[in-house]
Amino acid sequence: MKYSDRIVNTPPSFVRNILKVTGNPEVISFAGGLPNPISFPIDKLQNSIQHSIEENGPKLFQYSTTAGYLPLREYIANKYNNDFGYEIEADDIIITTGSQEALMLIAQVLVNKGDGIVMEEPGYLGAIQAFNLTEPTFYSATLEDDGLNIEELEKALQNPNIKFIYTVPNFHNPTGITYSKEKRDAIYEVVKKYDVALIEDDPYGDLRWNGEKLPYIGAGRLENSILLGSFSKTVTPGFRLGYIVSKNKELIRHINTAKEAVDLHTNIFAQYVIHDYLVNNAYQEHVDKIISLYREQASAMLNAMEKYFPSTVKYTKPDGGMFIWVTLEEGMSALKLFDKAMEVKVAFVPGDPFYTDKTNVNTFRLNFTNSEPAVIEEGIKRLGKILHEVSAKELV
Amino acid sequence: MKYSDRIVNTPPSFVRNILKVTGNPEVISFAGGLPNPISFPIDKLQNSIQHSIEENGPKLFQYSTTAGYLPLREYIANKYNNDFGYEIEADDIIITTGSQEALMLIAQVLVNKGDGIVMEEPGYLGAIQAFNLTEPTFYSATLEDDGLNIEELEKALQNPNIKFIYTVPNFHNPTGITYSKEKRDAIYEVVKKYDVALIEDDPYGDLRWNGEKLPYIGAGRLENSILLGSFSKTVTPGFRLGYIVSKNKELIRHINTAKEAVDLHTNIFAQYVIHDYLVNNAYQEHVDKIISLYREQASAMLNAMEKYFPSTVKYTKPDGGMFIWVTLEEGMSALKLFDKAMEVKVAFVPGDPFYTDKTNVNTFRLNFTNSEPAVIEEGIKRLGKILHEVSAKELV
Repeated sequence: MKYSDRIVNTPPSFVRNILKVTGNPEVISFAGGLPNPISFPIDKLQNSIQHSIEENGPKLFQYSTTAGYLPLREYIANKYNNDFGYEIEADDIIITTGSQEALMLIAQVLVNKGDGIVMEEPGYLGAIQAFNLTEPTFYSATLEDDGLNIEELEKALQNPNIKFIYTVPNFHNPTGITYSKEKRDAIYEVVKKYDVALIEDDPYGDLRWNGEKLPYIGAGRLENSILLGSFSKTVTPGFRLGYIVSKNKELIRHINTAKEAVDLHTNIFAQYVIHDYLVNNAYQEHVDKIISLYREQASAMLNAMEKYFPSTVKYTKPDGGMFIWVTLEEGMSALKLFDKAMEVKVAFVPGDPFYTDKTNVNTFRLNFTNSEPAVIEEGIKRLGKILHEVSAKELV
Repeated sequence: MKYSDRIVNTPPSFVRNILKVTGNPEVISFAGGLPNPISFPIDKLQNSIQHSIEENGPKLFQYSTTAGYLPLREYIANKYNNDFGYEIEADDIIITTGSQEALMLIAQVLVNKGDGIVMEEPGYLGAIQAFNLTEPTFYSATLEDDGLNIEELEKALQNPNIKFIYTVPNFHNPTGITYSKEKRDAIYEVVKKYDVALIEDDPYGDLRWNGEKLPYIGAGRLENSILLGSFSKTVTPGFRLGYIVSKNKELIRHINTAKEAVDLHTNIFAQYVIHDYLVNNAYQEHVDKIISLYREQASAMLNAMEKYFPSTVKYTKPDGGMFIWVTLEEGMSALKLFDKAMEVKVAFVPGDPFYTDKTNVNTFRLNFTNSEPAVIEEGIKRLGKILHEVSAKELV
């Protein structure tokens, strides 16, 4: 059989292939993006399961509406209205099968083959995969320590048929950086001049251990703002619950139509249970526990990097989230380092899949949320040993 | 903003709009395709939830693999091997977020814009919606009482770039018909000559109250066979669990890549729970209960139609499943009948959305699974009254 161009041109996920290699329990893996299982409130979710079934019986098991469980959408709207003073309603929200589905749906309703998407460089590889299904043209703007490079963003927006800009403003995947207040305002001033959507994908925003929560770039003030959220990093990824927020009614209507074609609706049992959990438990206390755990794990990694890495190696220092981004000396290959690291049973994600048009880059991503501090120190120590011992030539 | 061609050309679901109208509890609705809530084994699912969490803890709540929970895929493979003597393995199966997602994924990996899809006429509207996202060209073959018209199928297959044929061989949606053994063999003989896939979508196959289970058209013998199944009609639709079976390894690999881009993986909690339910309960006994309920409801509807409908109205007599298909005299409009029926608070789905290129048709779908027999009789009586009283002219 002959397959579609879109799938022939979509490589199978780099990260998922790495995860297969790292399935070996002897490997210290900084490769995945798995939340620490401590972040799953299993006992309380069990209570919410019982409680939801008692209260709503068959409704948890029947077909349901495409937009999602109304009380859950109301809860989400209230959260943003309370936290940021926005004026969001339940009808501005669609519950999705993880934020991954949200990314796919947005591209489906906006992008014709060849249309433009502006990506952060480096950018989230799951987004690149989801958008690829619509065969877009990618344009990049460099992601700096405080957010997108403004001149490059303006330049990218000059290209024809740009449909949207994709950003992860808080504790970015893969770099861990957070957009500054000033950069957010500067981006807003640029984007509002163009007829494009601005996606702010924010699965990690609640996981901040340093500094103050910042207002979004476009949410609450930009006509074509699309905000994405998720319960995967704060309650459970296994339930596959994310959501789209937009005040653009036409966009929401089209996304609803597309979602109906894609999976009719998201698992309604999971929506009832999460809603019950959120309204009957101290969610913030739970998140605070995750934050203090991740802060400790991030510190362990940063301290070990300070101690064991050569000073020529640069890396980010995140204020929250799950990732650190490492930059080797110019010309070095993170892929070659990966092969050497696997020999000493340490894994990470080489930077390549986070770029739409670069290969054999000198950057890589480290995840710190799924290993004990002592294991983190040991893994970084091994990586540092390679970086010191291997001659620069071997990595070029 | 300018939206994509694919979404601008996808009308919002007819049926979902009807379901909004019929939200009124006074309306007798034969419109939806909802299983009777008696088909949800809630107590046993609760036991399986407890049991699965005790046995597997955080694994129910963590990220998981795209293909789905291995023991569930093994269970499904065994079921087909036992029932039909096939040789299916877990690796030939991908768990999907309902069969709706399966339909979307298949089109994504096979269809470029303009490529051909052969549909039954009439055909399942959810499939039309899912396929529409890839902007295909639809070709139709008439669905007769025993399956697709063979000459029309052969003729459709002459068109350029046909990628697949879509069928619902058992208790078809919307018509309720089942393909005969002879027609299955005849279709197999035609299809095997072409480099196309044959989709057999079978959510209702287990719900048979008359006659013997038949072998599939292509599954087990056709190289590019794709079989779809679902737990929505026999356990719970709320969990959104369906699956794809194909022995074509390259196809399965591409679908896996596409699914990863679409939602990473299907809710893993639901997969563990369904698997535990299936292996620890008498599934067939449960299905037998659903069958005897639906048989009684179908009889109630058919008896009432015999009693109250004019003899000029023709309809199918299903051996299982959830639907009956009604054909009015030539030239009459089911849409016009729908408006009159709503005046007496009875709803059904006019045939239009089940055709890719016809409107104002003289056919409509009745669902019998979600009303008590007495309510079914009352609803059909009201419909019959309209059909007798209204002059033919008013429906033209």
